[in-house]
Amino acid sequence: MEALERKIQECGTVAQGNVLKVNSFLNHQLDVAFLCEMGKEFYRLFEKEGVNKILTIEASGIGIACLTAQYFGCNVVFAKKSKSSNISNDLYTAKSYSYTHGTANDVIVSKIFLSPEDRVLIIDDFLAHGSALLALISIVEQAGATVVGAGIAIEKAYQDGGRIVREKGYRVESLARVASMSVEEGVKFVRDEAL
Amino acid sequence: MEALERKIQECGTVAQGNVLKVNSFLNHQLDVAFLCEMGKEFYRLFEKEGVNKILTIEASGIGIACLTAQYFGCNVVFAKKSKSSNISNDLYTAKSYSYTHGTANDVIVSKIFLSPEDRVLIIDDFLAHGSALLALISIVEQAGATVVGAGIAIEKAYQDGGRIVREKGYRVESLARVASMSVEEGVKFVRDEAL
Repeated sequence: MEALERKIQECGTVAQGNVLKVNSFLNHQLDVAFLCEMGKEFYRLFEKEGVNKILTIEASGIGIACLTAQYFGCNVVFAKKSKSSNISNDLYTAKSYSYTHGTANDVIVSKIFLSPEDRVLIIDDFLAHGSALLALISIVEQAGATVVGAGIAIEKAYQDGGRIVREKGYRVESLARVASMSVEEGVKFVRDEAL
Repeated sequence: MEALERKIQECGTVAQGNVLKVNSFLNHQLDVAFLCEMGKEFYRLFEKEGVNKILTIEASGIGIACLTAQYFGCNVVFAKKSKSSNISNDLYTAKSYSYTHGTANDVIVSKIFLSPEDRVLIIDDFLAHGSALLALISIVEQAGATVVGAGIAIEKAYQDGGRIVREKGYRVESLARVASMSVEEGVKFVRDEAL
């Protein structure tokens, strides 16, 4: 999605530690009109898949998931991150490791909000190592529901999450794929022909 | 908003400890079409106020804030909760106390996303003791911006947050006002004539 690549070039910054900051439109301030355009693009990509539920993870996935869900006419479930080990029986849980924060979290969804007839599109803002996405996939499959695919805003294509998830047979559609980034040279994208 | 009162009666449950669970449409699963109706109601209430930014707080405020922002044609900023004391200089911070979790949090917004010309509508899912709302108001005012008011989905009117914030002169519009609730008797609402 060229508009997203331009937006990242214009509004994103690369910080020390190889962090891509997109706080001005995706992670802290949310550019609602732009997120709607991204939602329309996810709808264009997945409209034939019979999606009846969108799953995301708190907090920064929620905005784009809700705005996308309008086009599909479906509800959103957002997984919660809990550091508690006090897991009751009516929850699906999976482990996710945050490389940014250096912590392992349980990702949690109440069992009543996923069922075998659900065709689930997973939406998230970033895909890097794939830990959160694999946890969400695990939760959908624990429920016996179908993972239609994953719609990702920004994939760090130089990390291995996208490859791992695609090699498992899941469809992953990323609206922008970062090939490399550095404080000095900024952000470079994977060109389509290189996919 | 009668539709919200009906929704709470149909889908909400009162749990031990006087907790109103609305996980099926507002706090975990998000009923996107219904949240849009709530967003339209917030727009009807505040459309003449020149709102150019919506401020909310992660995580469950984000969905309703984004869907509401579409009607105002504005962006959303969501405040972050941090337990870290490592606050840098470019952040507005305020203390909020969670009675549910028994913890005090810093509520944080990057300074670059609020400025004196902003007319800010604060959106949140619940108002009880008012601690989070007062923290968000403080942040808007630290930025020299204007608090147009607060749009709340569910106010626990038997707690004192709404009274405190209104007595300070802020406009608070709650789409449903809970007068009392218990496991045995369910939820009762404040009738309009009792306001």
